[in-house]
Amino acid sequence: MFKVNIKKDMKLKQIKKAGIIGVGLMGGSLALALRKSFNNFEIIGHARSEKTFRRLKKAKVLDRIERSDKKIAEEADILILATPVGIIIDLLKRLAPHLKKGAIVFDLGSTKEEIEKTAKSNFSKGVSFVGCHPFCGSEKAGVEKAKEGLYQGSLCFITSTNKASYLVEKIWKKIGSRVVRISSCAHDDIICLTSHLPHLICFSLVAAIPDKYLEFSSSGFVDLTRIASSSGDLWADIFLSNKTKLLKHLNKYNEISNKFKDAIIKEDKKELKRLIKKANKKRAKVL
Amino acid sequence: MFKVNIKKDMKLKQIKKAGIIGVGLMGGSLALALRKSFNNFEIIGHARSEKTFRRLKKAKVLDRIERSDKKIAEEADILILATPVGIIIDLLKRLAPHLKKGAIVFDLGSTKEEIEKTAKSNFSKGVSFVGCHPFCGSEKAGVEKAKEGLYQGSLCFITSTNKASYLVEKIWKKIGSRVVRISSCAHDDIICLTSHLPHLICFSLVAAIPDKYLEFSSSGFVDLTRIASSSGDLWADIFLSNKTKLLKHLNKYNEISNKFKDAIIKEDKKELKRLIKKANKKRAKVL
Repeated sequence: MFKVNIKKDMKLKQIKKAGIIGVGLMGGSLALALRKSFNNFEIIGHARSEKTFRRLKKAKVLDRIERSDKKIAEEADILILATPVGIIIDLLKRLAPHLKKGAIVFDLGSTKEEIEKTAKSNFSKGVSFVGCHPFCGSEKAGVEKAKEGLYQGSLCFITSTNKASYLVEKIWKKIGSRVVRISSCAHDDIICLTSHLPHLICFSLVAAIPDKYLEFSSSGFVDLTRIASSSGDLWADIFLSNKTKLLKHLNKYNEISNKFKDAIIKEDKKELKRLIKKANKKRAKVL
Repeated sequence: MFKVNIKKDMKLKQIKKAGIIGVGLMGGSLALALRKSFNNFEIIGHARSEKTFRRLKKAKVLDRIERSDKKIAEEADILILATPVGIIIDLLKRLAPHLKKGAIVFDLGSTKEEIEKTAKSNFSKGVSFVGCHPFCGSEKAGVEKAKEGLYQGSLCFITSTNKASYLVEKIWKKIGSRVVRISSCAHDDIICLTSHLPHLICFSLVAAIPDKYLEFSSSGFVDLTRIASSSGDLWADIFLSNKTKLLKHLNKYNEISNKFKDAIIKEDKKELKRLIKKANKKRAKVL
């Protein structure tokens, strides 16, 4: 596990500046939650383009907006990376040399192994990386949808075990998240099955339906396909970042789906009932 | 299309007795809705076993409970078959000789082609069959979950075009359903894609997840997998009753899923984004 030396007594009250790169639904909601819970933080957000600058200004979720992410990296005590996974990886590489001594960087990315490896091989001593994944995304996107309470009561995985991770845990708890500590490998496996594979399946299902049938949707279908609205920019990255596990679990899923197919071809009602009952039992454990 | 001669002026007010076979969530809710909208109907339900008899008595959704479905068939002006699809087919064959002259039989089954064929080849002149599919099922089951408003505002497909179907349409409209007339073949194709295939996929997905991961479920996963609680008794029948279309659409779905797989293997981010965007566009048309 990645470790760095930081001041033993790093306290929340020593944090003056929190930088956020990627101020969308997740980053924007975190800005609002931090503002509510930590009135000593100056919250600085990044806007690469003039257009984003205007959107962020209008959304009023930040104390200051900067056009240079390097400048934010140089200033921030806490730097939060809330972009899609692919960009988090680029940022870790590009911003590592600019980080302030003692800075703590954490991310909100949906996969953790590749991100942690990148931080490990790019960060120097005196700066810390903490892998985080708050489990409260939405098919919605954009800072306009940000809300202060998004993280309240939601699950947040922390996959690092360094000292900085305990300070980051305090931040998540303060804004109302339930923190679960887990290895990045186990995290990526869980998330693959409960989020990445479902997204892949759902995208495929919706794409298989002719347009003219879409109006005849039951409430079950509406619920089922909600995640098919999720953004391609975000999800192409996520799929590739969790490639090995996703392909493994897709194969496992296909095996089970083929059992259904075989039972239907053979008109084996008993086997169909057995397969469905197995799914019923698992589903009963979800809630 | 199946046609029989019925009295030209068959009116709602001529219906005195409505029989229901299969008094569960759907049948029980229909009993409650009929009682509210048609106070001239005597609503008679079937309880094969003593245990069901006691459950129905306790649920208070019927005016009378009979142990013999033949007796109900002999008495009913309107006979409603609200059992799983396989049993509807058995009932059509077995009860056809016992139906009262002028009787109208309709069903609530999730597939229509096989059911209509069975009625066509078993019903004699003077009795009518009307294929119906109210599109408001639930993963819940049992008469205890029945509610008067279940059909209010929900979609109901009618797949027959005989005279009796216009009277049955009036009944559905009176209890608040939006009626859509469609051929049984088109119906089974639509429902295959928006309900049967999603159920198959969802059962397979949930079955692929190790028990220990089930506690880490996002709200998206909870929504997505709701239908994996649906009953095996019901769904084994439905899958087999729509076998040809289901296998066809499962293959189509697998083709698309394989495109995702190939793009992930090749790390083709552009193709992944294209596939996801296509799904996004379709999903936007669902609501």
